Amino acid sequence: MKIVVPFKRNNAKSRLAGMLTPEERDALAMNMLHDVVDALHGFEIDILTSSMLSNGEVDLSPHVLLSDYGLNEALNDYLRSRARHDNDSVMIVMADLPLISSKHIKEIAGLDADVVIAPGKGGGTNILYIRDPSGFHVDYYGTSFLDHLRIARESGSSVEVYDSFSVSTDIDEPEDLVELMIHGNGRAARMLADSGFTVVVRDGRVEIDRIRA
Amino acid sequence: MKIVVPFKRNNAKSRLAGMLTPEERDALAMNMLHDVVDALHGFEIDILTSSMLSNGEVDLSPHVLLSDYGLNEALNDYLRSRARHDNDSVMIVMADLPLISSKHIKEIAGLDADVVIAPGKGGGTNILYIRDPSGFHVDYYGTSFLDHLRIARESGSSVEVYDSFSVSTDIDEPEDLVELMIHGNGRAARMLADSGFTVVVRDGRVEIDRIRA
Repeated sequence: MKIVVPFKRNNAKSRLAGMLTPEERDALAMNMLHDVVDALHGFEIDILTSSMLSNGEVDLSPHVLLSDYGLNEALNDYLRSRARHDNDSVMIVMADLPLISSKHIKEIAGLDADVVIAPGKGGGTNILYIRDPSGFHVDYYGTSFLDHLRIARESGSSVEVYDSFSVSTDIDEPEDLVELMIHGNGRAARMLADSGFTVVVRDGRVEIDRIRA
Repeated sequence: MKIVVPFKRNNAKSRLAGMLTPEERDALAMNMLHDVVDALHGFEIDILTSSMLSNGEVDLSPHVLLSDYGLNEALNDYLRSRARHDNDSVMIVMADLPLISSKHIKEIAGLDADVVIAPGKGGGTNILYIRDPSGFHVDYYGTSFLDHLRIARESGSSVEVYDSFSVSTDIDEPEDLVELMIHGNGRAARMLADSGFTVVVRDGRVEIDRIRA
């Protein structure tokens, strides 16, 4: 199995612009990528990115593939190239899943289904396992969970949905940072704490707030 | 094991007031309660409520306990009464979890830990298993997930976190209805579809909208 992590660095996590400076958003994206790569330890990883990564700044040992395409095009190109190579199975793992652990990856890889979909919030797909890359294409954006279910069924593949709160927690919106601070214990969670953020309860709702600069 | 489901009917789901009429919110709360009770089939259930339930309207076979207390007080009163009775284990299941199934309940009940916490979004606790009710008290509201972790550790109990997207999906806010329509297949999900709601993608975000009255 090959694991591929698509990663966009430029203007990453723009929906967090009200909470974090551009430099902090960039650092958060990099820290989440590191947390994800830590969870993938022991597997063969490709990082698929259109962003130049400075090797002086980060130690990214996994193979970095550069792509000029959009997310779907880059991943479908990747699947086609894997299919031509040896058609070994592929797992696509999003880069903004700081709560995942190697346990999740091993459990998903150990399931019997041809296609395994771990949903993200709001109809998304956070991890997608594809046993036969030659018979599949991805369609991220929108209700990709439903799209991937449909694509799998249309190709006659068996499908399993992997049910995990940790895997479902992708970090896009300010309220997602609450989950990261409450449930996270990796680099991204530490970075938020080190940046002065803390969890507060306001009018019965749980939020995060910066208590010091 | 006894399972207790606290249920508030009066002005239920007030944060959905912009999406649903008061009658629809009431019906949604009742349908979600039915979905939860369906998932608990085969277990001994108490429904803990301060709301009068019309028996002509719903067929609620589980034992209905009435309480005039707030959520914490009513549940802690319940735990004390169970402790006095036979101190058998208790599982507290929230009434707004329309994506749960009996598989989740059996898995949680089958874990070895003294206390099992299934987190909800935003620091909440959606299912709480307590092996020894005499040594525990609940503290819902705010970051109850962290509070329940602390209470369990302070009492020397072993704790396990149950990691499920389905269990984490409590229905409070409009965006939660997206999860219900995409992942649900019970009464609450059907009610939304029957009420004219559908999933739409707008500016790259997934929402639900009422396409017909």
